[in-house]
Amino acid sequence: MGKKAEIKRLRKKLKKLKRAVKRAGGGKTPPTSPLAPAAFPDLPKIDGAEFAAVNSGVKYVGRPDVMLARLAPGTAIAGVFTRSATRAEPVLDCQAKLGAEPQGGAAILVNAGNANAFTGGHGIEAVRALTGAVAEKLSIGVNRVFSASTGVIGEPLPHEKIGAKLDDLVAGLAPGRIRDAAEAIRTTDTFAKGARAELRVNGKRVRIAGIAKGSGMIAPDMATMLVFIFTDAQIAQPALQDMVTSLADRSFNRITVDSDTSTSDTLLVAATGKSGVSVDDNADFRDALGAVMLDLAQQVVRDGEGATKFVTVRVTGAADDPDARTHAFAIANSPLVKTALAGEDPNWGRVVMAIGKSGARADRDRLTIRFGDIVVAENGWVSPQYREEDAARYMKHDEITIAVDLALGNGAATVWTCDLTHGYITINADYRS
Amino acid sequence: MGKKAEIKRLRKKLKKLKRAVKRAGGGKTPPTSPLAPAAFPDLPKIDGAEFAAVNSGVKYVGRPDVMLARLAPGTAIAGVFTRSATRAEPVLDCQAKLGAEPQGGAAILVNAGNANAFTGGHGIEAVRALTGAVAEKLSIGVNRVFSASTGVIGEPLPHEKIGAKLDDLVAGLAPGRIRDAAEAIRTTDTFAKGARAELRVNGKRVRIAGIAKGSGMIAPDMATMLVFIFTDAQIAQPALQDMVTSLADRSFNRITVDSDTSTSDTLLVAATGKSGVSVDDNADFRDALGAVMLDLAQQVVRDGEGATKFVTVRVTGAADDPDARTHAFAIANSPLVKTALAGEDPNWGRVVMAIGKSGARADRDRLTIRFGDIVVAENGWVSPQYREEDAARYMKHDEITIAVDLALGNGAATVWTCDLTHGYITINADYRS
Repeated sequence: MGKKAEIKRLRKKLKKLKRAVKRAGGGKTPPTSPLAPAAFPDLPKIDGAEFAAVNSGVKYVGRPDVMLARLAPGTAIAGVFTRSATRAEPVLDCQAKLGAEPQGGAAILVNAGNANAFTGGHGIEAVRALTGAVAEKLSIGVNRVFSASTGVIGEPLPHEKIGAKLDDLVAGLAPGRIRDAAEAIRTTDTFAKGARAELRVNGKRVRIAGIAKGSGMIAPDMATMLVFIFTDAQIAQPALQDMVTSLADRSFNRITVDSDTSTSDTLLVAATGKSGVSVDDNADFRDALGAVMLDLAQQVVRDGEGATKFVTVRVTGAADDPDARTHAFAIANSPLVKTALAGEDPNWGRVVMAIGKSGARADRDRLTIRFGDIVVAENGWVSPQYREEDAARYMKHDEITIAVDLALGNGAATVWTCDLTHGYITINADYRS
Repeated sequence: MGKKAEIKRLRKKLKKLKRAVKRAGGGKTPPTSPLAPAAFPDLPKIDGAEFAAVNSGVKYVGRPDVMLARLAPGTAIAGVFTRSATRAEPVLDCQAKLGAEPQGGAAILVNAGNANAFTGGHGIEAVRALTGAVAEKLSIGVNRVFSASTGVIGEPLPHEKIGAKLDDLVAGLAPGRIRDAAEAIRTTDTFAKGARAELRVNGKRVRIAGIAKGSGMIAPDMATMLVFIFTDAQIAQPALQDMVTSLADRSFNRITVDSDTSTSDTLLVAATGKSGVSVDDNADFRDALGAVMLDLAQQVVRDGEGATKFVTVRVTGAADDPDARTHAFAIANSPLVKTALAGEDPNWGRVVMAIGKSGARADRDRLTIRFGDIVVAENGWVSPQYREEDAARYMKHDEITIAVDLALGNGAATVWTCDLTHGYITINADYRS
């Protein structure tokens, strides 16, 4: 073969292979999720809360991987945690420290890259060493120092590396540095997550600012999520805890990426009280906090590992609310539904399958299934007005709603999820290497 | 650049791309699962059972896609079916027909390519038309004609196409054609599945031959599986049903590919009685039938969509058997465990995670986790003698055993699964097109 023909042949082969790579997801994932918000929000300063972040060298290079938040005396702290039976030590430690009426200042220390989970006696030793050191540096009680860790399970946390950076962290504390903290807690996250709210209560301004991390091992209860929310509202700890527990059930406990639940999930909400505005029974504050929590929860789904679709699953007409939730999660967790979404295939038969397998009550012949506004199935069969090309066009959107009505009762639930793509496999078949 | 240099550059690029394609699964899956048995077994003829297969043109071209089995008068038939709340019409029809004492001959008609599921009134109409026509052609009662369908959900089954081939099917019936039947029921299966057993009861020979299809939408109870087992043993229908129900719980209800449960799963066992050997309470027969069922169930896992690893998950020391089963399935269904297996990553932290999320009882600090014979974790941490390179070498095998001991009680369970690969995504993100 002449050289010219050989070049032509090789070029043709290359072109073909490039198409194959593209089709197969390329073994790569985009640097930032296509579902990410346009920008990190401009979070308000919260009076009584300061932040700092540094690199500790535990795992990541050239980026901050530890954050510290210092909270003013009197700050009330509420929390919700993973229900995993194999919870990590920082989670157990936080749970033991919650519930006390606030006395003196408080702090939250978080590292990324190592979960300090399932590391035997080493785990609690690391937590004690770090929270003890923070308490000493900030002159606060150790029972007011909360910590969280995220990353690989089963490797001992080299806590000395973090301990060696505490002076730098304390020296760097400033009210405006919450975004640095959001960056420091990322692991496989493709973007830093933040959300805000401002409201007026009795004419006085109250501010809420929250950050989160999470993109895989995401399912209730809760998800591989760390979430830290700060407000200058004044609220008693038990009232804050009640509010946070119930709002978590409508936000962080309503999302799933892959049905796997982390050993380290932690949500902490800190109310410094510095606004001087009491919100114990305030519905507006509750709504604002709920909106911040839902925003952060949905951002976690938008950063689902390999996600290309943000999917809302809404179930109505169930026999009761728990049944609705069971159906919604059966759909949202089904690998076959999720791969159909990835393939932009309006394969509603797989939605029928998921409802059937969920174990909750359903009557095949009373189901109505919608993709967006398009009625695809009703009365136990494809809808007479359904046209596959309409649904196929709808499935090309970044944001998809699957709505199911069971026509059995008044039970309803909404959950959020993403699709299952080659990107998820690529990320998770090779996470540790 | 000279032509030589250009050729060199292109060749280098090609090589690199080929690696990327391989890494990403290539957008293709191998024509046959790497976990398939070496060959289809040489199934014995079962006296009283005849088989035929033809192409009906319902979906597939150039291969048989309908099978018919004719069974001698007196054949006892037992069955186990999907528990889906959105079961397909053929399943409901089979369930209604089971349990009667055998009178006259019987038949099983199966088509691949269309599941006849969720098609409104059309579904039952198609079942009635086909089973009625078979009954007429074979001069048997319609309540002795069982049917099953597998394939796409929600599209009406063009049953006239199958009806038009019934004469060909009947004309082709022969005792030796069970392999043709196994080929005809394949959908995404990469190989036809068969298993056999022969035993002597009171000096007389009894034969068992079974076929199955299934590779995705596989989870209890049961899986996207069609399984048909034939034996010349003589057994009363209620005794056969009891035996089959309990054996299914240790075979087909112990496998999972993707946690999704089909609307069409059907297992039928037909005992023609032609051997003249009664096996109502025979333990040897029970064991032999159980072995055939387990073999077929494991072949379904070996043909799991995109599978490259056959994985046994064995849980011992659980508080009770149901807890053991819950833990085993939590591990076997975890996308993070399954992608780690695909990546040959001994990521036992994800096993800890799966146990934690399962909801069954576990004590983090009493767990022992083994990959094969390698103790990876014990006493709440990595084992002191564990070396990552040993486990990494073990993970390269095609067959992997994950063993977990909970040190809580005597509960035990074993389930079988496969890994989650790019191949699964490729197959399922594009199934209907």
